[in-house]
Amino acid sequence: MNPETLQNYAKLLVRKGINVQPGQNVVILAELDQPEFVTQCVEECYAAGAAKVVVDWTHLPITRSHSEHRTLEVMSRLEKWEMEKWQWQLETLPAKLYLDSEDPDGLSGIDQDKYTKAQQAIRTAIKPIRDRMENRYAWCIAAVPGKAWAKKMFPHFPAEHATEELWNAILYASRAWGDPIANWDAHNEELISRCSYLNGLGLESLHYTASNGTDFTVGLLEDGRFCGGMEKTLSGVPFNPNIPSEEIFTSPRSGDAEGILYASKPLSWQGEVIDRFWVRFAQGRVVDVGAEKNESLLRQMVSMDAGAAKLGEVALIPHDSPISNSGLLFYNTLFDENASCHVALGKGFSNCLRGYENLTQEQATARGINDSLIHVDFMIGTSDLNILGRTRDGRDVPIFTQGNWAE
Amino acid sequence: MNPETLQNYAKLLVRKGINVQPGQNVVILAELDQPEFVTQCVEECYAAGAAKVVVDWTHLPITRSHSEHRTLEVMSRLEKWEMEKWQWQLETLPAKLYLDSEDPDGLSGIDQDKYTKAQQAIRTAIKPIRDRMENRYAWCIAAVPGKAWAKKMFPHFPAEHATEELWNAILYASRAWGDPIANWDAHNEELISRCSYLNGLGLESLHYTASNGTDFTVGLLEDGRFCGGMEKTLSGVPFNPNIPSEEIFTSPRSGDAEGILYASKPLSWQGEVIDRFWVRFAQGRVVDVGAEKNESLLRQMVSMDAGAAKLGEVALIPHDSPISNSGLLFYNTLFDENASCHVALGKGFSNCLRGYENLTQEQATARGINDSLIHVDFMIGTSDLNILGRTRDGRDVPIFTQGNWAE
Repeated sequence: MNPETLQNYAKLLVRKGINVQPGQNVVILAELDQPEFVTQCVEECYAAGAAKVVVDWTHLPITRSHSEHRTLEVMSRLEKWEMEKWQWQLETLPAKLYLDSEDPDGLSGIDQDKYTKAQQAIRTAIKPIRDRMENRYAWCIAAVPGKAWAKKMFPHFPAEHATEELWNAILYASRAWGDPIANWDAHNEELISRCSYLNGLGLESLHYTASNGTDFTVGLLEDGRFCGGMEKTLSGVPFNPNIPSEEIFTSPRSGDAEGILYASKPLSWQGEVIDRFWVRFAQGRVVDVGAEKNESLLRQMVSMDAGAAKLGEVALIPHDSPISNSGLLFYNTLFDENASCHVALGKGFSNCLRGYENLTQEQATARGINDSLIHVDFMIGTSDLNILGRTRDGRDVPIFTQGNWAE
Repeated sequence: MNPETLQNYAKLLVRKGINVQPGQNVVILAELDQPEFVTQCVEECYAAGAAKVVVDWTHLPITRSHSEHRTLEVMSRLEKWEMEKWQWQLETLPAKLYLDSEDPDGLSGIDQDKYTKAQQAIRTAIKPIRDRMENRYAWCIAAVPGKAWAKKMFPHFPAEHATEELWNAILYASRAWGDPIANWDAHNEELISRCSYLNGLGLESLHYTASNGTDFTVGLLEDGRFCGGMEKTLSGVPFNPNIPSEEIFTSPRSGDAEGILYASKPLSWQGEVIDRFWVRFAQGRVVDVGAEKNESLLRQMVSMDAGAAKLGEVALIPHDSPISNSGLLFYNTLFDENASCHVALGKGFSNCLRGYENLTQEQATARGINDSLIHVDFMIGTSDLNILGRTRDGRDVPIFTQGNWAE
């Protein structure tokens, strides 16, 4: 890969993604796949004035080994120093850059029941801290190629060629060509104007239908708002939490959803792929699921806690969008969710409420933003998806027609 | 590299090196160079019954970036969670496996003054904990190839070939051929019988002379002992702290050393190579040093603290030994020190005192074991080194003649 292109990509992630401020700490979370690029990101953070950059490396084959051999008790325990590290994050609010390169099948075949229980325990332990950090720090999820991931996407290429192809796909989807920062300024403008249009409609609900059987209605909050692209921390620092990001999204009214959604793409969760699945809602909660592959994992997911069976997000992405048009299936939510309308089970976003700046997490929950230990997106967009909006003043407004924006 | 050979090497490190006990924690410290081998070591630890294995990854180019861009104040600070992690180690005494693969020149050109000061602060902060852990946990330093290290050793080979050569050199030096565990049982026997012989002599001092100008005398402790190969934790777990290890060593009487030592090999310290140097002692302390390369770094080293100018170790290795006979210069202390007689500046080993089991660190220091923030070995062995021992009953006993054991 051209070094200048990678340098520009690193700069995009550091300046537009987490937007490092002078004197700030930064935490970068990465697999071992691209040490040179991670080093470039570290350099860019310091160039932006970071005081201290900390890289937390993980390696999925070792995560697999842990999950195979540690007891549930050991897996569920957060050591005191691990809690102190979270406490340090709460106190110093480092910007967090997640560089995803995971093998979508990297944990397939492990004891998912044990793994899910351990995740449940650990997420429960850190939730109070994470809740208190919400909206207060800049974060960004982006991707770099991993060998196994590249091989899954491009199985007919030799390893090195597949990795190069995946770099190309990531950089294209992330608008990291030419002048990436200018690209993102323009892109953010477009997303903001789309949000303004939707927020002006006063929508009360969305009704989804498609030829695959999807027939689903979700209620929206009166003081909810659609967001997309750039966000701001409570202290006013703009950042882009996802690169790429094509979505306009909101958190719906927790507990207000009826009907059935058919997934249009596979979903990699906890290192395993769930495929050809559907989810049925009644009175806002998941009441049944089915999957041709890994149905039991899907059932574990929706039973993680009370909020895991309710929606935290609905997101709108035209079928005619750059990632979708590439025709690639990434088996990675960051990309696949940005190629397709999706919804997320679990925790919602309090900043999708007008006036969220003055609300605690508890208050946001009380106003209808779902709460949970998880937030898992799954894709429902198809080329024939129609979405009809119903406004609070009783009008029907086509939002999506045949997979794309109606307006 | 043959997968079975690597598997056997991993097993050697886990079973003979740190000798993982059922239910124990393990910490592995590694650069990013050999993730597959590190994964094998993790698997071997769990196979030996480890409860929890934690891998701490570092990447020297990022360490360089930190040291270039962090302020001295930031570099010198241990966060509370980092101290808590040391505290966790003190409380649970995990076995520690260090997998060295560092580029010997990886930090060349950085501000060594700043780096040394920061190291001084950090080592001072954790010293009380490390002192309390001494002799209570199993540890092992071993090596795996890193690309830059391989390239330095085999500059004329292409990268992949150089790495393969370095694997061969590491595995050969580490006696990791055939049945490595049987090799080490036999090797430990030999080292122990050599120690018995030396400990029976009742040595009071050693006098070193060689044609390069070395003319040096060091005093030994009356209740000192020579050690080599396998050691035991205070709770009785045998382990091998260095793989490879060819040395018979002891901690001399702190403050009892006179004369000049000429280094016979370069020394990589803090990511830079110090070369063609000498160290002069008077009344047990370094009073002058000289080096053709990186003299100022050498001066920083001996001024790290009061104990850094005194000896913590003298080690005897015949010139005719496997690593030495390979003719390879590793630019890595683990190997070069095991190919050559050496001494170490800085902290000594309390377990080189008879009856150390009942001594605190302070008591060991009071009895003449040197104390310091550092422990840095440098090589003084040559093919014409003579070492004459003087016994407490006034006899002169040749210990080394022309670079090899006299007896």
